[in-house]
Amino acid sequence: MTDIVIGNGWILTPDGLVRGEVAIEDGIITNIGEKISANRVIDARNGIVMPGLVNAHTHLGMTLLRGYADDVPLERWLNEYIWPVEAKLDEIDVYAGTLLGCLEMIRSGTTTFADMYIRMDGAARAVETSGLRASLSYGMIGDESRAERELKTGKEFVKKWNNAANGRITTMYGPHAPNTCSPEFLTRVRECSDRDGVSIHIHLAETEAEINEMKSKHGMCSVRLLDKIGFLGPDVLAAHCVWLSPEDIKILKKNDVKVAHNPTSNMKLGSGIAPVPELLKGGIVVALGTDGCASNNDLDMFEEMRMATLLHKVHKLDPTVISAREALEMATINGARALGIDAGVIAVGKKADIIIVDTNKPHLTPKHDLISHLVYCAKGSDVSTSIVDGKILMENYELTMLDEMKIMADAEKVARDLISRVA
Amino acid sequence: MTDIVIGNGWILTPDGLVRGEVAIEDGIITNIGEKISANRVIDARNGIVMPGLVNAHTHLGMTLLRGYADDVPLERWLNEYIWPVEAKLDEIDVYAGTLLGCLEMIRSGTTTFADMYIRMDGAARAVETSGLRASLSYGMIGDESRAERELKTGKEFVKKWNNAANGRITTMYGPHAPNTCSPEFLTRVRECSDRDGVSIHIHLAETEAEINEMKSKHGMCSVRLLDKIGFLGPDVLAAHCVWLSPEDIKILKKNDVKVAHNPTSNMKLGSGIAPVPELLKGGIVVALGTDGCASNNDLDMFEEMRMATLLHKVHKLDPTVISAREALEMATINGARALGIDAGVIAVGKKADIIIVDTNKPHLTPKHDLISHLVYCAKGSDVSTSIVDGKILMENYELTMLDEMKIMADAEKVARDLISRVA
Repeated sequence: MTDIVIGNGWILTPDGLVRGEVAIEDGIITNIGEKISANRVIDARNGIVMPGLVNAHTHLGMTLLRGYADDVPLERWLNEYIWPVEAKLDEIDVYAGTLLGCLEMIRSGTTTFADMYIRMDGAARAVETSGLRASLSYGMIGDESRAERELKTGKEFVKKWNNAANGRITTMYGPHAPNTCSPEFLTRVRECSDRDGVSIHIHLAETEAEINEMKSKHGMCSVRLLDKIGFLGPDVLAAHCVWLSPEDIKILKKNDVKVAHNPTSNMKLGSGIAPVPELLKGGIVVALGTDGCASNNDLDMFEEMRMATLLHKVHKLDPTVISAREALEMATINGARALGIDAGVIAVGKKADIIIVDTNKPHLTPKHDLISHLVYCAKGSDVSTSIVDGKILMENYELTMLDEMKIMADAEKVARDLISRVA
Repeated sequence: MTDIVIGNGWILTPDGLVRGEVAIEDGIITNIGEKISANRVIDARNGIVMPGLVNAHTHLGMTLLRGYADDVPLERWLNEYIWPVEAKLDEIDVYAGTLLGCLEMIRSGTTTFADMYIRMDGAARAVETSGLRASLSYGMIGDESRAERELKTGKEFVKKWNNAANGRITTMYGPHAPNTCSPEFLTRVRECSDRDGVSIHIHLAETEAEINEMKSKHGMCSVRLLDKIGFLGPDVLAAHCVWLSPEDIKILKKNDVKVAHNPTSNMKLGSGIAPVPELLKGGIVVALGTDGCASNNDLDMFEEMRMATLLHKVHKLDPTVISAREALEMATINGARALGIDAGVIAVGKKADIIIVDTNKPHLTPKHDLISHLVYCAKGSDVSTSIVDGKILMENYELTMLDEMKIMADAEKVARDLISRVA
């Protein structure tokens, strides 16, 4: 017997929007059709039934630092605000911050995310509690002094949590960045990744300063160095990729590297504009991410889609650059491909990670083109229902599993305590 | 006796956030203090009590075209989509579209807007119905053949509607742009404006094509020509101002022209990036606008504030450019100054145009800095209460005066009929 049927909606399929019902059984989409019977029927109320959004790069525990430091130069931001606080973070803090982030994600239509942070047992427990799907990595700083200890922590995390929570949790190795990890360290990470069969999540070419540092230290830019040491591959999720040469783009394509574009974060930190039209033209899988809440400052993937089309249109002075449909693909199917998850599309056999967008709103009226509306008008707050792995996490704006008030209160308290420990 | 007291909130004042109560009588803020008695008490529930947002440039009837044409080149967008539809618009259409826009604005925290469009009797009636405050202008195309008729329509509109609806409606002259109006026409508009004591709303330096056209036709750019013919002044609201030279900025400052910056529209249409940091540095009043819904595609001024800081940070590769506080001023006090309205700030004697932002949300937690949250995290959908001219238009998310479902259904029908008339 089918577990759940979602009826009375516009189903977003690879061929466009169609009327019909979506059937779910054992966490999988089993049928798209009509008059399917089920134990549980969800009324989409003429809303859009679509794949849950995939946030391909974040540091979810950083919700605790939302609004803690804005509008300051990058070096001061890191040295005076972010790093001193992170040095004090414990697992309980990260649990509270990550759970707050999961709550915000459920409310705003994200069903899956890729996280890289510290005290990751706390993050994994929060994902377990939340019902979301995530690919988690411990962010390793691979310099001389810390390399051994960091790799050990990374390995232990992978071993402990890969395929946990009924497979909702997968893990990655998370070497922080080419300029915070030595080439030797990155080579060892590649070996571990191959041995354990898990992917790699890394920051890449985020700032001009990184490229300059790499050139002066290694005589070549980040992408070339990673290529030279055999680090790159189809299992590498590279966040940012702002400062790329045309040659770098060819190297990424040759290695089938997946890119996580973070337009809001790149804007807010003044990092630069990633060559996304060129990456897409080059056939590279580009997903979307919000980055952490200290540099965004929220987790709304609808806003991120919008930013991903608007930023490149103005940068190229061309309104045809990155269409609504392309932005939507970046946030769904490309995200799933980047994380190696069989989801991101409403089709039979795919994982049942599904959201319903309530279109009965003034800002989504009139309905000339619902796909345009999803990218140019919809907000996270229009998501009424969220299903992950076939389980209902929110229905008609009501959370089914989480205690919203308690999670917010806990995060508020933990954040205040944390700042007072730093001050 | 005080009409309304708003209690239990964080009041956003020019000196920052303070606890206390705000008293309203006869549409004016009469007291900011404690334990004030009133006929009606509104509980802000620890939310932010702040000035309503001012949308300083829009074409509200264009909500009917939301999502009708995206991701197409500008010339095709205008010639094949926008203009053919606008040629068919009647007053009933504009009433329905404007009322839909007013509804969206109330829901998303805008209390006042500057509109320039056609069939403006329909727009004015919608503002009258909605309870919002607006400065309305008929958009005049001032070329040879139409000049006389257009100016007559503009004058009649000013005469009929200025200071209507208990003063909530004021009017402006709306010559469309320097390249769609002749210098002679613009000179006559300036005379009418001086005679009638109403301001002027004009598009200025929106695209590079406009500047090129002006240079080839008149041997000088738009700003210089307007200065030369004595058109500019402190009563001119100039929308866009994207393509400005340093000399142009000096001219705008000399004439105390008010600028309406429209970052999302400029991004979506690929128009360019306005020199807003330079305008602010030059002491020019810069307000914010969404532009019409065919080029945005919504009316969310929270998003517009966010865009106004993020776009310039990445353009200058500097995260300190345009702070959250500056963006907030652009959307409140600067908007009020640009429209010549004694509002935009919570202070005794000012018009009671006030909103309450509900901060009891995951994406606004923790509360390190509520002003940062207003700009970097808050969404229109966080606005719980809206008061305009001392009247409650929405309280705790419930609309008090408008029938939301009917307005949406009417606009949907009108929009579909309109498109079918064009096809």
